[in-house]
Amino acid sequence: MSTYKLEKHLATRLKNMTCSAIRDMLKQAGRPGFISLGGGYPDPESFPIDIIRSLRILVKRKYKNSIYQYGRSEGLIQLFEQLIPFFKRTNRSIKATPHTISITTGSQQALAILAMMFIDPGDYIAVETPTYLGALQAFNPFQPRYIELEVDDEGIVPDKLDKTISKYPNIKFIYIIPTFQNPTGKTLSLDRRVRIAKILRKHDVIAVEDDPYSELRYEAEPIPSLQSLIPEKVIHLFTFSKTFAPDFRIGGIVAPPEVCETATMIKQGLDLYTSNYNQAMVTEYLAGGHLEPHLKKIINLYKPRRDLMMSLIDTYFPLEISHTNPLGGMFVWAYSNNSKTIHINTILDEALKKNVGFVPGNPFFARKKNSPFSMRLNFTNQSNSNIEKGIKILGQILHKYL
Amino acid sequence: MSTYKLEKHLATRLKNMTCSAIRDMLKQAGRPGFISLGGGYPDPESFPIDIIRSLRILVKRKYKNSIYQYGRSEGLIQLFEQLIPFFKRTNRSIKATPHTISITTGSQQALAILAMMFIDPGDYIAVETPTYLGALQAFNPFQPRYIELEVDDEGIVPDKLDKTISKYPNIKFIYIIPTFQNPTGKTLSLDRRVRIAKILRKHDVIAVEDDPYSELRYEAEPIPSLQSLIPEKVIHLFTFSKTFAPDFRIGGIVAPPEVCETATMIKQGLDLYTSNYNQAMVTEYLAGGHLEPHLKKIINLYKPRRDLMMSLIDTYFPLEISHTNPLGGMFVWAYSNNSKTIHINTILDEALKKNVGFVPGNPFFARKKNSPFSMRLNFTNQSNSNIEKGIKILGQILHKYL
Repeated sequence: MSTYKLEKHLATRLKNMTCSAIRDMLKQAGRPGFISLGGGYPDPESFPIDIIRSLRILVKRKYKNSIYQYGRSEGLIQLFEQLIPFFKRTNRSIKATPHTISITTGSQQALAILAMMFIDPGDYIAVETPTYLGALQAFNPFQPRYIELEVDDEGIVPDKLDKTISKYPNIKFIYIIPTFQNPTGKTLSLDRRVRIAKILRKHDVIAVEDDPYSELRYEAEPIPSLQSLIPEKVIHLFTFSKTFAPDFRIGGIVAPPEVCETATMIKQGLDLYTSNYNQAMVTEYLAGGHLEPHLKKIINLYKPRRDLMMSLIDTYFPLEISHTNPLGGMFVWAYSNNSKTIHINTILDEALKKNVGFVPGNPFFARKKNSPFSMRLNFTNQSNSNIEKGIKILGQILHKYL
Repeated sequence: MSTYKLEKHLATRLKNMTCSAIRDMLKQAGRPGFISLGGGYPDPESFPIDIIRSLRILVKRKYKNSIYQYGRSEGLIQLFEQLIPFFKRTNRSIKATPHTISITTGSQQALAILAMMFIDPGDYIAVETPTYLGALQAFNPFQPRYIELEVDDEGIVPDKLDKTISKYPNIKFIYIIPTFQNPTGKTLSLDRRVRIAKILRKHDVIAVEDDPYSELRYEAEPIPSLQSLIPEKVIHLFTFSKTFAPDFRIGGIVAPPEVCETATMIKQGLDLYTSNYNQAMVTEYLAGGHLEPHLKKIINLYKPRRDLMMSLIDTYFPLEISHTNPLGGMFVWAYSNNSKTIHINTILDEALKKNVGFVPGNPFFARKKNSPFSMRLNFTNQSNSNIEKGIKILGQILHKYL
């Protein structure tokens, strides 16, 4: 009788995979009194429950039984019609047609589809340093080699990007989060977007522009997307997880038609299609004009939390720790380039013991060894008083070790 | 200025991918008067709309705002509790614990996850001939080599399976649909299940048992699953797309704990998690005892359609065409081993012109060249009168060419 040893049978790609540090950490977050500054979560108190209820009634009335039937892999036609004006908002300034939109099951699936579409083992892709760890999780199984793009306070540095592409002309794509970046909260300036568009125009390379956060702007004027500057070379990702509710699982891409067609083919193998009903809910959310007032409400909720978090870090963290000053989004990035001797996991272990969570910086780096002492701090999913408690406790721990 | 040529940049795995023949064909199905015998669709008239409405009220009352928040990659805990008794139904006879269940976004995602988990390019996997084309679509991008398992009226032939595994000891898994198979409607007998369990026990190999249809039995007694005979060597797939509604996108696997853990890790990269709300709807559907009466209703709807379709084929198709006699499920398989000279696509083209659709057999074969002249005919998603019209038209076309 032969037993079965899974380890022996796993595909090679699994060797590059690990569970998300965030999800592992959040398993502890269920404890009573636990203050998680860890996830990239909206505040559930902000979910527009009354609007959702009225939309359910509307969807029931407007859509027939067939809404519960298998649907189109590309997405619901009615949603496409609502997305076109949504994309025209000044924070995106996206030009789209029904042939340049594909709906995905959350924007995480868009990342997985793009990884399947482009990456052969050993292919080069370029990412900001640090970058979104969920993107690394989507890309890793396809075994790319990462090029880390240098970033300063205004985002990636165009001249260095140009040199990088010249050095690696077969690079498959450049993955960037230009607005309120995850994890740093930084924003790529308009001037740099224009220069990067020029660089893309020069080379045979495409950029993936991930934009989950640009609706969550707390100050200053919106900046048009990179897609608006060079739509033929950009795959733009959007999601309604931060501006409606994550659970509808509605995201997608805007991209050249041949990219959308290929994405649809890949999506068929991954999950056939995304729930029509949930797409209809987003459709009617947009059609009913609910986005704008809801954004006002959550911006009023989140902006003071951001302000509070930044000021508490200034007050309670050691001087050695710097932090970013995000104009929007969900995160403040706190870091020190001089604390290599203290391992961030020591701080995390101590914090978890004191019922406070954050995400250590290293999983956000394609090459972990390049990571400074750093932590990603979320300010959207805790009350002001919890943010205050949490940052004070983290400050005490940091003072003890730094 | 450099243009971007997608074709040049695609990953190698895309060369093995094609769009689903079903989905391509169904694009024509929107035409008025079109009779599709093509999809594997339930009848939307069967969807339990009133139950869905009452469940929505219940879910709103029982679950808090946090149901709309990001959820666990493994699945909703409340659903696990309802699944354990569901798995005990005689048609499945599955033993499961919370550590041996993973929820997926439809069972298509389970197939994609297993492909990612096991298949390196060139790896062997074994499939029935013919097999479910959606499984081939999920597996193809990972570039397996297919071993085709010979099938007779009782399903795969155990002795030949034993020889096959002995010949290919590194085979990654055996993919089978033992009950009301897609596309043929055939069922693997209990005797053969017992013999296959013995063969699995002997070898270091695992079976993937896909079971979307076993609740849709129209006659004879249920047969326990292969999983119930050898749970340590079987990954059992389930879905609520056929017994509730496809649009909730709730499926999953029952598998050894280490397989579930790995599946969760892969799922994080694919779409983070499956909608909590939709999982809650399935939870309350099961908890409320709604499955049993709904199954009665759809069995009463589908059984006469199956009977009618089989009798119409006997009446109107040329004698040369044989068909299977499925005891359940959604499909009749009509085929001829003597009609190699007439290409099935000639029949399909003619049928589409006359507003009738079916799925030609060849995409269901891992190696297309082995496919006989064959067609998959769905009887669940058309009225009796449409089934009659459709089969008569197909009969006329077949008589013209055969």
